[in-house]
Amino acid sequence: MDLTEYIGLIAGFLITCSFVPQIMRVLRLKSAREISILFTSLTLLGMVLWLTYGIKHGLIPIMLWNVIGLVLIIILLYAKMKYGRTGA
Amino acid sequence: MDLTEYIGLIAGFLITCSFVPQIMRVLRLKSAREISILFTSLTLLGMVLWLTYGIKHGLIPIMLWNVIGLVLIIILLYAKMKYGRTGA
Repeated sequence: MDLTEYIGLIAGFLITCSFVPQIMRVLRLKSAREISILFTSLTLLGMVLWLTYGIKHGLIPIMLWNVIGLVLIIILLYAKMKYGRTGA
Repeated sequence: MDLTEYIGLIAGFLITCSFVPQIMRVLRLKSAREISILFTSLTLLGMVLWLTYGIKHGLIPIMLWNVIGLVLIIILLYAKMKYGRTGA
């Protein structure tokens, strides 16, 4: 694995991990009014497509981080459903 | 450009566009308390690295959407600075 693949792994790690403090913040505040439902649902759909893209190209970092990202965005979407008042 | 590249373009389009309603929502509510500063800053850093990855591999969708994504995440970070109370 060359340097570029490591960059991809770190890039995905950072973006995927970024959802963890966001989920924690919403759960701690027990409020998701400011979280856009369109943000969470479009991101979810986009990650499904990136996963397809990664599989087709055999790009390990894209596959790996989009699988983990999908789990996290589903948790955020659940938190929005639980704590968020309606709003796009 | 084959079908896979179109999937990548649509994936990036969806994820990049997802930031637009999120920014709109924060600006409309004039509140970004629930937005995690770690979420925005890690995403920003991750996008810079994805852009590097895309350039190294010559992957057009990754380059394109990360450039636009960077502009949007900077706007969201600005909104967090303006409207968000402190919190990780």
